[in-house]
Amino acid sequence: MIKKFKEIIENYNLIEKNDTIIIGSSGGPDSQFLTYMLNEIKAEYNLNLILAHLNHLHRKEASKDENLVKATAKELDIEFQVKIASMDEYARKNKISAEDAGRRLRYAFFNEIARKYPGAKIAIAHNKNDQAETMIMRMIRGTGIDGLCAMNYKSSNIIRPILSMEKRDIINYLDQNNISYAYDKTNGENDYTRNYIRNEIIPKMENINPQVVDNLYNLSELLKNDLDIIESRVDNACDNVIKSVGKYNISFDKNGFEALEDSLKSRVLRRAILKLKGDLKDISKENIEQFISITSLGNGKKSVKDSLIFIKNYKTYDLYIDQSNNLNKTIELLSPDKKTYFNGLIFNVTLVDKVTKTDKYTAYFDYDKVDFPLTIRYRKNGDKFKPYGMNNNKKLKDFFIDEKVDRNLRDKIPLIISNDEIIWIVGHRVSNDFKLDKTTNNILKIEVENDK
Amino acid sequence: MIKKFKEIIENYNLIEKNDTIIIGSSGGPDSQFLTYMLNEIKAEYNLNLILAHLNHLHRKEASKDENLVKATAKELDIEFQVKIASMDEYARKNKISAEDAGRRLRYAFFNEIARKYPGAKIAIAHNKNDQAETMIMRMIRGTGIDGLCAMNYKSSNIIRPILSMEKRDIINYLDQNNISYAYDKTNGENDYTRNYIRNEIIPKMENINPQVVDNLYNLSELLKNDLDIIESRVDNACDNVIKSVGKYNISFDKNGFEALEDSLKSRVLRRAILKLKGDLKDISKENIEQFISITSLGNGKKSVKDSLIFIKNYKTYDLYIDQSNNLNKTIELLSPDKKTYFNGLIFNVTLVDKVTKTDKYTAYFDYDKVDFPLTIRYRKNGDKFKPYGMNNNKKLKDFFIDEKVDRNLRDKIPLIISNDEIIWIVGHRVSNDFKLDKTTNNILKIEVENDK
Repeated sequence: MIKKFKEIIENYNLIEKNDTIIIGSSGGPDSQFLTYMLNEIKAEYNLNLILAHLNHLHRKEASKDENLVKATAKELDIEFQVKIASMDEYARKNKISAEDAGRRLRYAFFNEIARKYPGAKIAIAHNKNDQAETMIMRMIRGTGIDGLCAMNYKSSNIIRPILSMEKRDIINYLDQNNISYAYDKTNGENDYTRNYIRNEIIPKMENINPQVVDNLYNLSELLKNDLDIIESRVDNACDNVIKSVGKYNISFDKNGFEALEDSLKSRVLRRAILKLKGDLKDISKENIEQFISITSLGNGKKSVKDSLIFIKNYKTYDLYIDQSNNLNKTIELLSPDKKTYFNGLIFNVTLVDKVTKTDKYTAYFDYDKVDFPLTIRYRKNGDKFKPYGMNNNKKLKDFFIDEKVDRNLRDKIPLIISNDEIIWIVGHRVSNDFKLDKTTNNILKIEVENDK
Repeated sequence: MIKKFKEIIENYNLIEKNDTIIIGSSGGPDSQFLTYMLNEIKAEYNLNLILAHLNHLHRKEASKDENLVKATAKELDIEFQVKIASMDEYARKNKISAEDAGRRLRYAFFNEIARKYPGAKIAIAHNKNDQAETMIMRMIRGTGIDGLCAMNYKSSNIIRPILSMEKRDIINYLDQNNISYAYDKTNGENDYTRNYIRNEIIPKMENINPQVVDNLYNLSELLKNDLDIIESRVDNACDNVIKSVGKYNISFDKNGFEALEDSLKSRVLRRAILKLKGDLKDISKENIEQFISITSLGNGKKSVKDSLIFIKNYKTYDLYIDQSNNLNKTIELLSPDKKTYFNGLIFNVTLVDKVTKTDKYTAYFDYDKVDFPLTIRYRKNGDKFKPYGMNNNKKLKDFFIDEKVDRNLRDKIPLIISNDEIIWIVGHRVSNDFKLDKTTNNILKIEVENDK
């Protein structure tokens, strides 16, 4: 196994000498296996290993799991870091599944550690079975080739060195080497969808072909290969047909765009929309076809989807986001992986331990006082606000007058709303009702930056 | 429904005026729906419709189904054609599933009719649910993007005009219009894998997301789009790097091949292998990676897989089929869709009603005397043969001598073998033991042509 492990590390350039690697560990078999494997190459690569465990407080065995990871750290002489956070509470608060909550909390914690070590990598113990399950889950929920590629060995600072290893081989290795592991947490009763796929759907597929996990894994590898081909062709097409890229507008050369095959037009448009909106949520195949269909119509023809407009001009096709419609945006959930884009700004929302950076574009709130989803919008008539340090509501208009904010700027200041109350006038003041105080357990940090 | 049907016909250019269309009908709801839809546009398109039904003799209801299709033909004033063939017997004979046997027999029958009408199309009543099932089946059995695209609206002479229609909408339409249909044959108990996917796996997936059939269908459409992009990029790469194509050899420009991204190298090699071998059976991702890996090694380096050799030369990479190893090829099963390639020759194997064309490269056998799989090979020491018209075996060597076949040609004459007996010395003589006689029920026809 160690031989295969090393081959993967080398073939996919996952680890370099002197790396700091934060091992995300649940204490389950995959995590234990990953930890022991990394420990095997620790000396050779001169690695700084950190074993990180998030105690979800979720099941009775939670502290037992924590102790196992701690004991492993001690045995292997690796630094151990632990954090406690209730995934159930987080899930309730954010109206997401416990599974999703756990995932978000874990990655936030691992990233928190990673920030202390520039260039640090986070190693996650996903294996071949996880990969197959993810593919089936995405297929059921709806996806394209990008989604079917599922997880990669490497994506930004995350590495998955045991992605191509099979569960049964992992368990065999642990048993043969007398390495103990926690009851597999990922089988937990709340981990509903994935669990259902693992226990109900895959066994039925295995009745048809016992090799189904392998086949799905191989499919993901083949598709990654294909996706590379597609992406490089789309890169090329974009280079050729995109004339200009603005914050709210992307302009295509008319002849160039028309000369693309329809399949490429579709991919190029998707990429442009991703650039403008930050995601492809709510954009269906039909929406894209609608956009493309104006190529066969007269000049001046428009196709509209939400705030997205695609228009045929004399020398160009222009895709843009209509600002007048774009006055509301939702920060649905905390997500360490995801940013929220709003009219040229990026909103980063994270849970933190303490207040660090303070500037006009960073604000902190008592997380337990806030209701998700948050909304970002501009002011409207009748807006009120309780400025930090005051005990009464004030009309927003009066606040702007008192603060001497230029009249023509007032419509351009984003407001963050929690359950109809303004919690932050971005760049100006936070609300007194959501500020940090002695009772604060969890700190919500919002940072705003320009989308360069 | 008729509006949607017409849109599909037009958008995908499925039907042209004056077409002859053979409707493959089981009598089930999908077939009945397709028949009535096509009948609706019969006058407008001036269609020559033929309703074709293969009675599989499979279930008790078989003759009931036949009568229903016949009655439909009469009611709509459409020509009716029927054929009887036992799928169970065919399955046993060819060691394939009854499902597979039925499919092969049906397509063979439809193509038989189509041959009488040049340019005729065969309309098949596959719907959205069939598409989703096919995708899941292929995924389980192992596939790449090509397989996941599943069925197309159009492939050679086959059209599938109701591919994007949902089962429940089809049933609704039939019920509302009082159109009767046979119990859905595709639910038949022998149709094991597909049935299991439909009844056991998809419902479980629908528990996670009721839209799963739609999502899978949409995935297939997205992937078709992506496959177009890939294929055109591979076309382009092949044009640039392939220096020469022979029957057993494809030569690549060395610098050009090395300059390709790995993902493209892989697709280009796959396509070259497909060209040489006729299929990609038994070629794994690892085999391809092995081939590609010689690019980083010295000249003269060879990589071998079965009879395929990939070699690095001074100015080229050469892929070729080693003829010395290529002395055996199996015709596994009758398949109207598939041809068997053997050293520059193509073997077409079909079931026919009567002897038509007769020439040196076409032979007819009593199908019930033959055992599948057939083997194609060259002669070896000790071969014997009972030439047509003789009652005794003769040494093959003596046959060649008597027939005055040049010594240097004898090693290049393909022999068709059934269960260790030579049934045909291609281009020369068939065996007396397998010839047609008064008792022949089913005629097996083998045609050999050059692979130009």
